[in-house]
Amino acid sequence: MQLYSFFNSSTSYRVRIALALKGLPYDYLGVNIRTGQHREPEYVDGINPSASVPALVDGSFTLGQSFAIIDYLDARHPEPRLVPQDPVQRARVLELATLIGCDIHPVNNLRVLRYLQDVLQVTPAQKDAWYRHWIDEGMAGVERLLALHGHGKWCFGDAPTLADVTLVPQVANALRMGCDLGRYERVLAVYAHASAHPCFAQAAPKRQPDYTA
Amino acid sequence: MQLYSFFNSSTSYRVRIALALKGLPYDYLGVNIRTGQHREPEYVDGINPSASVPALVDGSFTLGQSFAIIDYLDARHPEPRLVPQDPVQRARVLELATLIGCDIHPVNNLRVLRYLQDVLQVTPAQKDAWYRHWIDEGMAGVERLLALHGHGKWCFGDAPTLADVTLVPQVANALRMGCDLGRYERVLAVYAHASAHPCFAQAAPKRQPDYTA
Repeated sequence: MQLYSFFNSSTSYRVRIALALKGLPYDYLGVNIRTGQHREPEYVDGINPSASVPALVDGSFTLGQSFAIIDYLDARHPEPRLVPQDPVQRARVLELATLIGCDIHPVNNLRVLRYLQDVLQVTPAQKDAWYRHWIDEGMAGVERLLALHGHGKWCFGDAPTLADVTLVPQVANALRMGCDLGRYERVLAVYAHASAHPCFAQAAPKRQPDYTA
Repeated sequence: MQLYSFFNSSTSYRVRIALALKGLPYDYLGVNIRTGQHREPEYVDGINPSASVPALVDGSFTLGQSFAIIDYLDARHPEPRLVPQDPVQRARVLELATLIGCDIHPVNNLRVLRYLQDVLQVTPAQKDAWYRHWIDEGMAGVERLLALHGHGKWCFGDAPTLADVTLVPQVANALRMGCDLGRYERVLAVYAHASAHPCFAQAAPKRQPDYTA
């Protein structure tokens, strides 16, 4: 398989964790979204019509969108399963993962922050406040879900799921941006446990071939 | 079952379509997100920790996040299945649905538009341009996916899937906001076909008990 990825992209990071947990080897193909490589016609027309990272190539099959990719990997390589099969466990995992993936991540990604800066010409302080606002709104929800349904070291149950796979990149991103997450104790506890796991660690931005400081 | 919903919420609209397609009766409980009912402690602590609509109550089980809810309905009431079981068909459906659900919808929802207006104090013209910008970015991707993998009247195959369930509310929202979608021919063709289906029609905002002009 080949993975089109950018080291600092949270959605790419999710898929890298999933591939590592499943022990699947792949070729890493860097796509620099800072310089707009994800918008170049050969990438959009040939690899990923979503004009984003990540994209997975599995033989003649090419797929974009991180949640679709991880679901596909679960279907093709079910060990270990990242989205449980039991309807209730599955629902809890998808609820937390999509809270992060729909309510937090999209509003704070690079293209949105750039629009704020370049088109709306907000100040750096306004951009930081925007970022922190959506992190706080979303992480408060994640903390509430963990308080109601969480189990301990991992978000749910005694093994990593899509919930952890989605939580770790988002928390890493928030910490890198200087957010104070101190009030989200359960979130930080899961992050500390999960990010130290070898498969999560090897998927981290700094360990990728296209990493730059 | 009970559904906490707001008539004009695209994510609620998705779940209403899914419930209608599966022929499942439910009690409609309106949550006015314009007046902030989704943030009231009794709702956040008792119903939906995500502090959003929709939320589904099925006996003693309560669940937020539209994609998690539809996946749960598919597990409990698989006829008709909205996310196919075949890995490749499933991947295509999830790719398109999450392109809309992650790349388009969150950036243009009510809370974000209100932040732009109330906190960043953008002009109405700037807010409209923001909305159109993300619609165009995302719909161009949806159109490319349909050109590559689409089948005709429905997004994929000869029956509605989660892709159509996600596309219709987003297109309806864009049209209501006055976006010109003329260049997205395949998107508009699916929308015309799907939105005329009785189950999609009965889920439309104007048909809900909490509708106001």
